[in-house]
Amino acid sequence: MSQFTVSQASGLDLKEQIKPDIQRVEEAMRQDLDTASDRLDDLLLEVLRYGLFNGGKRFRPLLTILAARLCGGDVPDIHRLAIAFEYLHVATLFHDDVIDNADTRRGRPALNRVYGTVAAILAGDFLHARSMAIVGERAGLEALKIFCQATGGMVDGEFLQLRNAANYDLSEEGYFAAITGKTALLIAATTEIGSLAGGATQEQRHAMRGYGSNLGCAFQIIDDLLDYLGDQQITGKPVGNDLAEGKMTLPLILAMNRAGKEDRQRLLQILKDEGLRKKSAGTVTEIISKYNGFSDTKKRAEQMICQAIAPLAIFSRETQRKDRLILEGLAQYVLTRNK
Amino acid sequence: MSQFTVSQASGLDLKEQIKPDIQRVEEAMRQDLDTASDRLDDLLLEVLRYGLFNGGKRFRPLLTILAARLCGGDVPDIHRLAIAFEYLHVATLFHDDVIDNADTRRGRPALNRVYGTVAAILAGDFLHARSMAIVGERAGLEALKIFCQATGGMVDGEFLQLRNAANYDLSEEGYFAAITGKTALLIAATTEIGSLAGGATQEQRHAMRGYGSNLGCAFQIIDDLLDYLGDQQITGKPVGNDLAEGKMTLPLILAMNRAGKEDRQRLLQILKDEGLRKKSAGTVTEIISKYNGFSDTKKRAEQMICQAIAPLAIFSRETQRKDRLILEGLAQYVLTRNK
Repeated sequence: MSQFTVSQASGLDLKEQIKPDIQRVEEAMRQDLDTASDRLDDLLLEVLRYGLFNGGKRFRPLLTILAARLCGGDVPDIHRLAIAFEYLHVATLFHDDVIDNADTRRGRPALNRVYGTVAAILAGDFLHARSMAIVGERAGLEALKIFCQATGGMVDGEFLQLRNAANYDLSEEGYFAAITGKTALLIAATTEIGSLAGGATQEQRHAMRGYGSNLGCAFQIIDDLLDYLGDQQITGKPVGNDLAEGKMTLPLILAMNRAGKEDRQRLLQILKDEGLRKKSAGTVTEIISKYNGFSDTKKRAEQMICQAIAPLAIFSRETQRKDRLILEGLAQYVLTRNK
Repeated sequence: MSQFTVSQASGLDLKEQIKPDIQRVEEAMRQDLDTASDRLDDLLLEVLRYGLFNGGKRFRPLLTILAARLCGGDVPDIHRLAIAFEYLHVATLFHDDVIDNADTRRGRPALNRVYGTVAAILAGDFLHARSMAIVGERAGLEALKIFCQATGGMVDGEFLQLRNAANYDLSEEGYFAAITGKTALLIAATTEIGSLAGGATQEQRHAMRGYGSNLGCAFQIIDDLLDYLGDQQITGKPVGNDLAEGKMTLPLILAMNRAGKEDRQRLLQILKDEGLRKKSAGTVTEIISKYNGFSDTKKRAEQMICQAIAPLAIFSRETQRKDRLILEGLAQYVLTRNK
């Protein structure tokens, strides 16, 4: 994976490089809420601010901005478009927290705990609507269509996951279909719409969509890996959550497919019993390790990161070098992140 | 209110007149779901069909169609646009039922009871996204902007109502602000976007928006009246729900403003105690009646229906007569409906 060493060798400090854009995203969100404050209920504003400004990485808007710049140089007001992707993402977090009855989010009490379920559902609906309005207004109908396909796909992916929940023989294909809908489609929309805003050629648009789609899948795979191997102090999320819920993610799927009769029986016994699932993280982690479930999951993510980076080769001009390196660096970050 | 007698005098059978359009709306929804069935999860489709095809009146899409035809004659594919308003409406019902933890909806088990909270939230999100995609695709960006303002306003109205909940001295203005956001903005968007699809002049657009806005307010006022005076067998909703939740609606607001010291104390005592609220519907209804709270609420709705109908006067051509009479008839129906 020689691509990764490129950005490291260039001595590019990723965090410093993306800082100005992240700050402009934060500003654009604050301005958007301030402008709306005349017509919005004070409580709604308070809820939105609580939910939006909580140290989020602003990963999605950053991708929009980079894609636009890589395809079209400096695009005026691109930050004002980019916030739509953060809004939609946060809207889904609000609803996820209601669905999961979550206690915390990024180390703070979850929105639904502070303001109640009603506020969390409604504020999610508001951000959802606002995100679409922004995409339509700033990027046009073609972009809106891509955006709506992504949101529709997200719901579809969640439903697939819902149905997959009790399917302990879930195939890798079933898993990938669910994470594509749940995560990758929106990341692909983020980079594709960014490229459209930058006036991309068909080839550029295709490359940016390919980058986003593969990056999104890798992102979710690592997320699912961290659910087993992450440090709760660092991730801010409880470990073993997916197992407790009986969710079949890639490490477990690989182990189930490869396990000998005895281990397989043991896994099934645990999976079918909610009480056992909650207290068997250690045993399950051991069995998954035994069949290389974690290391091979990591490898799949690495493959997808390679596939994400490959299409960026078309951005070969010197003026594109910096933004391309940042996109490659972000892809690398997805693999190495621990939260 | 001479307007009402017009449609009655014309012998126009409202139900028969609107039947073909309602049927085309049902067809358009079925087709839209069938077309999407390749890419949608089977469970999601099942949930959507359960939630969408339940004997709904299709009031909103009908308004879009009538507004379009009144302004622009026969507009091709107007039914395919109109379903967006039913989708959004049903999306809010899904989320409302989660918020209210509802048992039934239109006499059947509520969606959240049959498929669970997760499915209800997600299916609502899906319809929300799909409705915006349809409006953007079929009516353009200007229409989408109006639509998004309406959805934003709906959330805002719900938040206002949330904050109003414990305010037993809520003013009429506060009540109207909440119902405008919660209900009237979307109905106004329905008729305004319909008029745009029909290529309306500014004057026509303004008239259609005025009709929708006033009609929407009247609709909600009557809804709030039925919550006290409706017949559960007919409405399919439990009576006294608003009171049980401590929700301040117009009949109660009027009574609170007018009540003598003793009655006011009695009302406050009931309102402040959840247990009392649930078993005091009879007492509260009596006190509201004593101060003409119900009859004056009805009068306010009648006034708004007059204001809804007045701007329709500009549609004076013979070819517009039929659709105008239907709009007037629908306005009258809002006043006389018992469910």
